[in-house]
Amino acid sequence: MTQRLRLKKNADRRLKSGHLWLYSNEVDTQVTPLKEFEPGAQAVIEAANGKAMGVAYVNPHSLICARIVSRDPNVRLDRSLLVHRFKQALGLRERLFARPFYRLVHGEGDLLPGLVIDRFDDILVVQLNTLGMERLGEEVIAALDKVLSPRAIVFKNDTSGRRQEQLGHQVSVAKGELPDQVLLEENGVRFVAPVLEGQKTGWFFDHRANRAWLNELVVGKRVLDVFSYTGGWGVQAAAHGASEVVCIDSSTGALDMVAENAALNGQQERVTIAEGDAFEALAALKAEGEQFDVVVLDPPAFIKKRKDIPNGERAYSRLNREAMRLLGRDGLLVSASCSMHLSPERLIECVRGAVRHQDRHGQLIFQGHQGPDHPVHPAIPETAYLKALGVRVFRD
Amino acid sequence: MTQRLRLKKNADRRLKSGHLWLYSNEVDTQVTPLKEFEPGAQAVIEAANGKAMGVAYVNPHSLICARIVSRDPNVRLDRSLLVHRFKQALGLRERLFARPFYRLVHGEGDLLPGLVIDRFDDILVVQLNTLGMERLGEEVIAALDKVLSPRAIVFKNDTSGRRQEQLGHQVSVAKGELPDQVLLEENGVRFVAPVLEGQKTGWFFDHRANRAWLNELVVGKRVLDVFSYTGGWGVQAAAHGASEVVCIDSSTGALDMVAENAALNGQQERVTIAEGDAFEALAALKAEGEQFDVVVLDPPAFIKKRKDIPNGERAYSRLNREAMRLLGRDGLLVSASCSMHLSPERLIECVRGAVRHQDRHGQLIFQGHQGPDHPVHPAIPETAYLKALGVRVFRD
Repeated sequence: MTQRLRLKKNADRRLKSGHLWLYSNEVDTQVTPLKEFEPGAQAVIEAANGKAMGVAYVNPHSLICARIVSRDPNVRLDRSLLVHRFKQALGLRERLFARPFYRLVHGEGDLLPGLVIDRFDDILVVQLNTLGMERLGEEVIAALDKVLSPRAIVFKNDTSGRRQEQLGHQVSVAKGELPDQVLLEENGVRFVAPVLEGQKTGWFFDHRANRAWLNELVVGKRVLDVFSYTGGWGVQAAAHGASEVVCIDSSTGALDMVAENAALNGQQERVTIAEGDAFEALAALKAEGEQFDVVVLDPPAFIKKRKDIPNGERAYSRLNREAMRLLGRDGLLVSASCSMHLSPERLIECVRGAVRHQDRHGQLIFQGHQGPDHPVHPAIPETAYLKALGVRVFRD
Repeated sequence: MTQRLRLKKNADRRLKSGHLWLYSNEVDTQVTPLKEFEPGAQAVIEAANGKAMGVAYVNPHSLICARIVSRDPNVRLDRSLLVHRFKQALGLRERLFARPFYRLVHGEGDLLPGLVIDRFDDILVVQLNTLGMERLGEEVIAALDKVLSPRAIVFKNDTSGRRQEQLGHQVSVAKGELPDQVLLEENGVRFVAPVLEGQKTGWFFDHRANRAWLNELVVGKRVLDVFSYTGGWGVQAAAHGASEVVCIDSSTGALDMVAENAALNGQQERVTIAEGDAFEALAALKAEGEQFDVVVLDPPAFIKKRKDIPNGERAYSRLNREAMRLLGRDGLLVSASCSMHLSPERLIECVRGAVRHQDRHGQLIFQGHQGPDHPVHPAIPETAYLKALGVRVFRD
């Protein structure tokens, strides 16, 4: 018989709203002590009155001690349900995209808590971010094999979230063999994805629509791509007609790939790379009197935890202020944030402050979010994290 | 010498942040009684310490008693500044759009409080929404003539905001002659704009990008367009490959134009019209067992004033619930709101509630806003009003 996990009175409200998480302080540990659960085991969640609310996998050592995998208390997350969910996820992506390069599974947003899968044609990169999902690793491989018969599956299990789940890092080829290069195409531009050694899964598919928006506006423009990583924004801008692109990053490895990606699209002459800390590089460009028509700011998350919010907001404000100095009389600032804890309103506030600080005017002409292959679960605000603002900045 | 309008202590904070509005209770009426201002006159705004903060036009009888037209206390909003601002506004649109159909001036978002201008090629439709702008009507015409030499300029001065400014309605051809039909093109589809007798300026350019997003997803789909007006969503969906489109509206005049617009694009066989109250029509379709792949909800503002929020939110919730019933096992809901007082989060909440109510699952795959020809002023939250959510709704 399956174990049951009993909630305290009124602790079922979030679940009723559709959310999938349970916190350890919501469990009625008098009735169902958490320590009696094997880490990763699946259990039926029941309300204080005993009513079954669904099935979750349990991690007694994590703050989020259980994540719902089904509202039906009679099912389990197993190979069969994984196959079903993968097909559902694939169905959405196939409607959205003509080419097989996208996030195939976006965790809770695809009703698969703790699981992320990015697809590079016949190469799949999997992130198991929770203990419950880690336990299902072999089933995930088997289900992916059934649905997509990939050439290779990579486990890129090195996310920071794993620490909270008391999981170590593991990066390996779990199935098949990787080719020398894993390639992808986004908005008609080709890139190499460093799936083993790169950040995250090797590519950030989440900005696809935001980059597509910018691509339409760069013809003949001089573009600065700050925190360029492997050139997602910058190389695309060059391929879409920017006259010149400067990519700044602190990683030489990433900048080597910018050059490689630029060459892959015949844009090596238009793309320049500059290694360095973003703030220092912006100051240096300013000192040299450089000006750009477009500046793209796509920094790593400055706010990882709630307690980082004040410092993080100051960092976003400073970054936007410094970047804006490099725009000419009438320029375009693209200001992004992947910090879930920074609301769209607060990012607009950072931009507003920067505009006022320099006595310029700003027009917010674009508010982008994560792409549709990163679905937001409407009951889980935590699944929405990406913002990209397009701001025309001008002097009156 | 120009009159000065003195603010109370600390009443300059909003202006310092970049906002352009002053409320009547922020004026130091001991020093500068509002009744001494001629309605519509321009005045230098000064902080409590006497520092000049800019120039505004004043309406002593309105809650928003003054709107800043320049931060420079030495300039006035006159023909020359109008020409300058129109050129700035045009510069943005010409970068954004290949064809001359767009909102040319979006009030505060283009630093022209109270002024809206939509462009249909060589026909301009102007809305003067405040007394200060009404007084400048002739200058607006002269400045537009100088910048664009339009064939005709229409005054469509019948907005609800005019009442608060104690202005009556006035709809007239202010310059030139209107052709029999005013045409526009949006996302490659042609429409007639009823500039004199229609809603607002005759067309809603603000959803252009949201419709473009949907257009990519409708091939072979059966689409329901609720509150269709003249068919902005529905006719475009048909033209982009939807197998069948049903447009619902309560206005026979609007539905006649749906038919006309469908024919204009050779889509008359795929577009059906149905007259009636939206809620009743949804119930009737449900009773008849009808199902759709895509349902578009683009209602008029259910929340016009802050006090309407509770009732309005209930209406949005009910509408989304009723519409969702008409989706099949795996459908797409487009849920829009043009109520400035409804935050994006609250609209997501309406959708979340509807999904849960019917024990379905929802994936928020698109969050759209007003298009870039409706720029948001980063210091004026009131300039952001439009939301369009794209939600995949499915049964597990």
